[in-house]
Amino acid sequence: MKPRVSIIMGSTSDLEIMEQAAKLLAEMEIPYEINALSAHRVPEMVADFARGAHTRGIEVIIAGAGGAAHLPGVIAAFTPLPVIGVPIKSSNSIDGWDSVLSILQMPAGIPVATVALDGARNAGILAAQIISTGDGAIREKVIRFKKELAAKIDGANRELANIEMPFKVN
Amino acid sequence: MKPRVSIIMGSTSDLEIMEQAAKLLAEMEIPYEINALSAHRVPEMVADFARGAHTRGIEVIIAGAGGAAHLPGVIAAFTPLPVIGVPIKSSNSIDGWDSVLSILQMPAGIPVATVALDGARNAGILAAQIISTGDGAIREKVIRFKKELAAKIDGANRELANIEMPFKVN
Amino acid sequence: MKPRVSIIMGSTSDLEIMEQAAKLLAEMEIPYEINALSAHRVPEMVADFARGAHTRGIEVIIAGAGGAAHLPGVIAAFTPLPVIGVPIKSSNSIDGWDSVLSILQMPAGIPVATVALDGARNAGILAAQIISTGDGAIREKVIRFKKELAAKIDGANRELANIEMPFKVN
Amino acid sequence: MKPRVSIIMGSTSDLEIMEQAAKLLAEMEIPYEINALSAHRVPEMVADFARGAHTRGIEVIIAGAGGAAHLPGVIAAFTPLPVIGVPIKSSNSIDGWDSVLSILQMPAGIPVATVALDGARNAGILAAQIISTGDGAIREKVIRFKKELAAKIDGANRELANIEMPFKVN
Amino acid sequence: MKPRVSIIMGSTSDLEIMEQAAKLLAEMEIPYEINALSAHRVPEMVADFARGAHTRGIEVIIAGAGGAAHLPGVIAAFTPLPVIGVPIKSSNSIDGWDSVLSILQMPAGIPVATVALDGARNAGILAAQIISTGDGAIREKVIRFKKELAAKIDGANRELANIEMPFKVN
Amino acid sequence: MKPRVSIIMGSTSDLEIMEQAAKLLAEMEIPYEINALSAHRVPEMVADFARGAHTRGIEVIIAGAGGAAHLPGVIAAFTPLPVIGVPIKSSNSIDGWDSVLSILQMPAGIPVATVALDGARNAGILAAQIISTGDGAIREKVIRFKKELAAKIDGANRELANIEMPFKVN
Amino acid sequence: MKPRVSIIMGSTSDLEIMEQAAKLLAEMEIPYEINALSAHRVPEMVADFARGAHTRGIEVIIAGAGGAAHLPGVIAAFTPLPVIGVPIKSSNSIDGWDSVLSILQMPAGIPVATVALDGARNAGILAAQIISTGDGAIREKVIRFKKELAAKIDGANRELANIEMPFKVN
Amino acid sequence: MKPRVSIIMGSTSDLEIMEQAAKLLAEMEIPYEINALSAHRVPEMVADFARGAHTRGIEVIIAGAGGAAHLPGVIAAFTPLPVIGVPIKSSNSIDGWDSVLSILQMPAGIPVATVALDGARNAGILAAQIISTGDGAIREKVIRFKKELAAKIDGANRELANIEMPFKVN
Repeated sequence: MKPRVSIIMGSTSDLEIMEQAAKLLAEMEIPYEINALSAHRVPEMVADFARGAHTRGIEVIIAGAGGAAHLPGVIAAFTPLPVIGVPIKSSNSIDGWDSVLSILQMPAGIPVATVALDGARNAGILAAQIISTGDGAIREKVIRFKKELAAKIDGANRELANIEMPFKVN
Repeated sequence: MKPRVSIIMGSTSDLEIMEQAAKLLAEMEIPYEINALSAHRVPEMVADFARGAHTRGIEVIIAGAGGAAHLPGVIAAFTPLPVIGVPIKSSNSIDGWDSVLSILQMPAGIPVATVALDGARNAGILAAQIISTGDGAIREKVIRFKKELAAKIDGANRELANIEMPFKVN
Repeated sequence: MKPRVSIIMGSTSDLEIMEQAAKLLAEMEIPYEINALSAHRVPEMVADFARGAHTRGIEVIIAGAGGAAHLPGVIAAFTPLPVIGVPIKSSNSIDGWDSVLSILQMPAGIPVATVALDGARNAGILAAQIISTGDGAIREKVIRFKKELAAKIDGANRELANIEMPFKVN
Repeated sequence: MKPRVSIIMGSTSDLEIMEQAAKLLAEMEIPYEINALSAHRVPEMVADFARGAHTRGIEVIIAGAGGAAHLPGVIAAFTPLPVIGVPIKSSNSIDGWDSVLSILQMPAGIPVATVALDGARNAGILAAQIISTGDGAIREKVIRFKKELAAKIDGANRELANIEMPFKVN
Repeated sequence: MKPRVSIIMGSTSDLEIMEQAAKLLAEMEIPYEINALSAHRVPEMVADFARGAHTRGIEVIIAGAGGAAHLPGVIAAFTPLPVIGVPIKSSNSIDGWDSVLSILQMPAGIPVATVALDGARNAGILAAQIISTGDGAIREKVIRFKKELAAKIDGANRELANIEMPFKVN
Repeated sequence: MKPRVSIIMGSTSDLEIMEQAAKLLAEMEIPYEINALSAHRVPEMVADFARGAHTRGIEVIIAGAGGAAHLPGVIAAFTPLPVIGVPIKSSNSIDGWDSVLSILQMPAGIPVATVALDGARNAGILAAQIISTGDGAIREKVIRFKKELAAKIDGANRELANIEMPFKVN
Repeated sequence: MKPRVSIIMGSTSDLEIMEQAAKLLAEMEIPYEINALSAHRVPEMVADFARGAHTRGIEVIIAGAGGAAHLPGVIAAFTPLPVIGVPIKSSNSIDGWDSVLSILQMPAGIPVATVALDGARNAGILAAQIISTGDGAIREKVIRFKKELAAKIDGANRELANIEMPFKVN
Repeated sequence: MKPRVSIIMGSTSDLEIMEQAAKLLAEMEIPYEINALSAHRVPEMVADFARGAHTRGIEVIIAGAGGAAHLPGVIAAFTPLPVIGVPIKSSNSIDGWDSVLSILQMPAGIPVATVALDGARNAGILAAQIISTGDGAIREKVIRFKKELAAKIDGANRELANIEMPFKVN
């Protein structure tokens, strides 16, 4: 089994957030790899990783980082693959703004597909959607995923409908 | 020739920004369609458009909007396709923050791949990268695109190197 | 008894905030309904709900959501009724700014009457004030409500007046 | 003819923005009055105005102001009517944030229905929607207004569809 | 003993912050009064209070409020006295920005002397400085206060100087 | 004639803003001095100036600066006089936020009475109000100033009342 | 042993953050001194300290402060030495923005080398890098420090590689 | 003549700002080199440049970039030299916040000495101050530079002193 998605994070302290991307990929039965490589502390390992990813069969890279979050952009610089960026509200962050802006505001030529702050689960879904453009089986799984999402919401609403409150009409 | 990418914008006043995505796709010779459909003014047309896009062969949707920019998120709600969101700094925007946050901060289950403020050109590149995950010919074009980008920068630097300034060492 | 106000929220996790609107309506003896419908997860149910609300006798809609909060705006797109938007500071929010701006900054043609962050109680009062424009009995209740508010504050100040502090003059 | 809506602004320099509310009301054939009264410079006139508005038959008040914009909130303090607040990006404003937050973040008990920065036209629509809760003729006008909005957008999109661009599929 | 400073707050929940102003005035032996009067809930009491303050011998007003904090500005509208505004980070505040901007950004003609967020103690010192412009005895107290401040800091630094740390030079 | 107010600015480029304080003081016939002294470029002149101001009969200091605006705070450190701070939106400022926060957020013990961004005219009024606490003639002028302000506004509103607009009720 | 770096903080309450700079310098075996001197409370001691630092052999000054953080800038005004500024998120700070902007946005002529919010450890590293420009032994230590940093990260990644997760490829 | 400082910018469009650093170095007669190398477009050239800089005798690197400004941080990752970062308010920037935060908020271990937005001249001064820690001749130039700065300011103030204004005391 070869990984199709590579999840990478700036620090192992980001694992709690980033494993939500892994869980989503596992639900979709998409094989992945997961690594911690700091753009600032081991820049050469990051460059080697990013340059070689598409030749190893990786189709999408998900990169998460906090603060002045350069990891997604640095990887995007070295790879032709689509890179999904996950801003992370780390402990020293200025309310997450630093991470969001460092990942989102990439210059012309080098996009990073940015998701919400701490939105690693959505990064996993987006990776599945990207793979689905060339893989009908994953497309079916994405469609089923959205239906189940609707069903769960529908169930929650039915429960709410049964709560009794003064002047509430059911 | 069937379109592979659908570009959609909230208002025709966004065309100046959004046509940069179209130009990039034309450079890559990827056929696309381009439409203006407001999530707030013709919500049913947006819903119909989004529900049917993948059955018509569209592979990626690029949606741009300003202010309380709901268009990318509403489309993402109705389609299994990857949706790229382009925040636009429109005239009544609060410096673009409204558009950025309305597109980026999507709830769990419904990602939008957000690019930089007014970053429609990058949205085009990202669309090509996404398509390249299932299409080797586009992958080659993306690799060539990145090389040309590097060559242009290298040329600009060579010109800078030749400028004479006091105490500058060439 | 038919509901006159419809309270709707993006997720049942918003209930703790949104039930404050319900409580206020109950104090005013205005019948209401309360539902959870995600603009992103069940967009068609939201559209159906919004299109039909005024034909069922609903007079005002109160919609609350967090993050990239599209629910109030999507409902406003489908209904001629006045829509009150309640921004909610949910767990993944960037300090509430995303929710505030996604609801407030609606484009020309589709207003949402936005209240303060987590201001569901005020949304209830505003709904009563709106209904009071065509209903004299509710107008009387609103006037009485404001008098009681003043009386409570007056009482609190009297207690403060009796606290002894050095160099304080009573 | 008695006015049903009262438009009030903090300074005559706000007229350029606030007359957009007046124009919308004229389109809907709703009579209105329009005044400039500063909450800070003539506070007693503002208090007298607000206290008496509902007894004169006014149904909705639209109040616009910039900077530390207290006018909408001060009026809301003195009236049982629904008050719509229009934040205005005046020349000394800090990008409009001061005006938005001064109007939006009202304390419990005293809501202001806030619309987008400089969104006076939307304030006019919201006023019509509020009046429509007790006036079927205005309800019909609001429904017609929304249909015309959709038609205009549809027309704009048709024009866009006819533009020729390389690799564009019509 | 007649009060020379009047401390006023929007809600008794602000007392914990605002009593720091009272404590400072007590240290300076300046008599004061302290009240809670909401600009939005009892606007007429606020107007009466502000109009009459200077005729009762009050020399400075300190007004604190949170959220859309209109109290300091409304008081400034009705009085010729200098008004010191204390922004308060209340529970529903957007990180205090709403309160800071609502108090600071007053229009031309009606200044409010704004101090730091939750800076009630500094409001007390500023009140003493203002009174000292016409009262030499208070001037002496202010000068002494600043000297004691310096002495306390000097003492703290001496303690720090004695801590042993590796490679620290004392 | 000895100056009672000292106006000081960080750079002569701030003169266009700061002379509005001077004009207001001239209207009130309060003598003043005006100087440019940078807290960062001539710190010792600033310290000498601030230490001696009250002994020369100065009653209030108005200090304006842009960017990381330390001038008001540094002066406040060296003087027992009340210091009014004017944040200035200079060319390199980040929308004025740097100047506002550097002046407003002073630590406990050293208040600066901050006015609105570029609010030098209000600084002049505040200086007059402060002097009026010990000078009845200035008190009378402040009271007259507020009346004239109201009269001007009233005149502007009367003109607005005469404008003809469709569906406007006069 | 004479100190080569002087660490200074606005208040002893900043010690918990600032001692991280001291620890880093101790790791590098660079002697330092550490003091608390408030720019606002003992301005003359700060001026004396800053004026004399380079004549005592100090090579770099690290200054940390919160709120309207003037200490680094005031020191930079009085010394020819490079000054490193550490913004500190103190208890009354507006999320650290005040401290960051007060230190970063210095006027032309007086730079402060600003590091991340609460980034005292990085200030220590930067001080070592600055000293290393004239001291080869410290240069060697900096190079070794960066290698160890990379090694630690590499180790953390190896541990992550061994964690078993569903659909994870090792 | 070998360069002692290396100025590097993300794009030649940044030259207008960055040449201010060059001019300052020329005033100080410090030889420098100046290049444009994008961290995202030619990442390998940046890595090669940064790895080799200290072996070529460079003592300080000044790096400027706009938007998601990764250049200073990426260079800091590859070099033991002190790196000065200049945030640049480029055309697509969100008011400069993206650039400031991407450069300032570096993770522990990899500092960037950040100066004010567009503050390239200050970056030049800081570079001279850094070099002066090991070079007494440059120290003398820095001391002279600060004296001349003070003299210029003093001259500007003298001119201001001579302007006649009503009620101004000279």
